[in-house]
Amino acid sequence: MSINKIDHLGIAVKSLDETIKYYEEALGLKCEHVEEVASQKVRTAFFNVGGTHVELLEPTSPESPIAKFLEKNPNGGIHHVAFGTDDLVGQLATAKNAGVRLINETPVAGAHGKQVAFLHPKNTFGVLTEFCTE
Amino acid sequence: MSINKIDHLGIAVKSLDETIKYYEEALGLKCEHVEEVASQKVRTAFFNVGGTHVELLEPTSPESPIAKFLEKNPNGGIHHVAFGTDDLVGQLATAKNAGVRLINETPVAGAHGKQVAFLHPKNTFGVLTEFCTE
Repeated sequence: MSINKIDHLGIAVKSLDETIKYYEEALGLKCEHVEEVASQKVRTAFFNVGGTHVELLEPTSPESPIAKFLEKNPNGGIHHVAFGTDDLVGQLATAKNAGVRLINETPVAGAHGKQVAFLHPKNTFGVLTEFCTE
Repeated sequence: MSINKIDHLGIAVKSLDETIKYYEEALGLKCEHVEEVASQKVRTAFFNVGGTHVELLEPTSPESPIAKFLEKNPNGGIHHVAFGTDDLVGQLATAKNAGVRLINETPVAGAHGKQVAFLHPKNTFGVLTEFCTE
């Protein structure tokens, strides 16, 4: 099997500090790490939940894809789901052969030194979907 | 730790058959089980992804909460995230003490014989959030 886990959920938030507080106090989770990803124009906070990460994403620029998402969803919301795979190139070929358009025809660099690729949301039934290496 | 995994992602879909085909052919996942949950007015399909389930939800009535979600999101989309916990009652108390309104003050019966409870989405930064027993 190529996809072997849900690697992370990307959640768009207006305020990282306010939302970290909610995930820590109301859910009892522990923020592991905060990192700015300049290429995506976001500041991110990571929570490990049994091997799947909750990844909060706060835009650092109005040009960020997360800023655009927040214009439509002002309270924030789940932005994307990332499936972890041990065969990213094969997984992309499988999706393409099934008729799915790819945003990234080949993997690109993501956070944590992972390789990532996104499918085109027009083909994924409303769920922005990422594949990433483990 | 009370929350120990992401139990499932609930994904609203217009057509269960069409979306099962996508998850199987484009993502290479295997549908394990299809079940009608009359109380929620949905038909559901389950995929196990490394211990977290993707749960596709197709409304069986215009009165279903999923039908209302699809009115706003006609392509479908991620409807809710469910955190698995070994202490559901304690987890609800933690959330309430942190100022979160609860949709379910006490656990109710969910799919698979689990006990579940939802937090009020006004307090969860746009993410409809469920707690459920393992």
